[in-house]
Amino acid sequence: MSLTATQGLLTLDSLLTDRVRLAIVVTLAGSEDSMDFKSLLEQLELSKGNLSSHMRKLEEAELVTIQKEFIERKPRTTYLLSEKGSIELKQYLEAIEAFLQSTSDL
Amino acid sequence: MSLTATQGLLTLDSLLTDRVRLAIVVTLAGSEDSMDFKSLLEQLELSKGNLSSHMRKLEEAELVTIQKEFIERKPRTTYLLSEKGSIELKQYLEAIEAFLQSTSDL
Repeated sequence: MSLTATQGLLTLDSLLTDRVRLAIVVTLAGSEDSMDFKSLLEQLELSKGNLSSHMRKLEEAELVTIQKEFIERKPRTTYLLSEKGSIELKQYLEAIEAFLQSTSDL
Repeated sequence: MSLTATQGLLTLDSLLTDRVRLAIVVTLAGSEDSMDFKSLLEQLELSKGNLSSHMRKLEEAELVTIQKEFIERKPRTTYLLSEKGSIELKQYLEAIEAFLQSTSDL
């Protein structure tokens, strides 16, 4: 087994090492359109507070972009994976993949 | 993308969802012999307190077995992955693999 891959796992510095945030980002990446808060809540079965706190961190790190619009005078906020988020997700999944491959002889 | 795999990631209930504990268990799984605390410290580059706290949790959950022996009158404690730990590691890696495969069309 490669020591490097295990070290790689430990030294990964990404918001996506949290599996809830990883699930949020993967869900956004898999969605054709931007998603509103309610749809994310339903798909991920999280509490409002939990999702809200993770979304704030993802926004602050610019992994997720917020879109605000009015539909029939009602404000609607939707979330979209940013290009930065998309690149970080790809890199993170590659790192996990490399780690998994290193464990294949266990 | 499969929703089930993302849900699976979120509902995984294992001590190994913590990546430090995952790295410890993978390191023990990759070692031919049992390992002492110092070797684990060196390989994983963790602080004593951090490693110690994770080892305690792994012991309590019986994923890791402790061996105590005397070598030239000095006590030596070594750690070994238990059969339960080995099964849980395998299941956990399979779940991550399934999740990764579900993201392959992102």
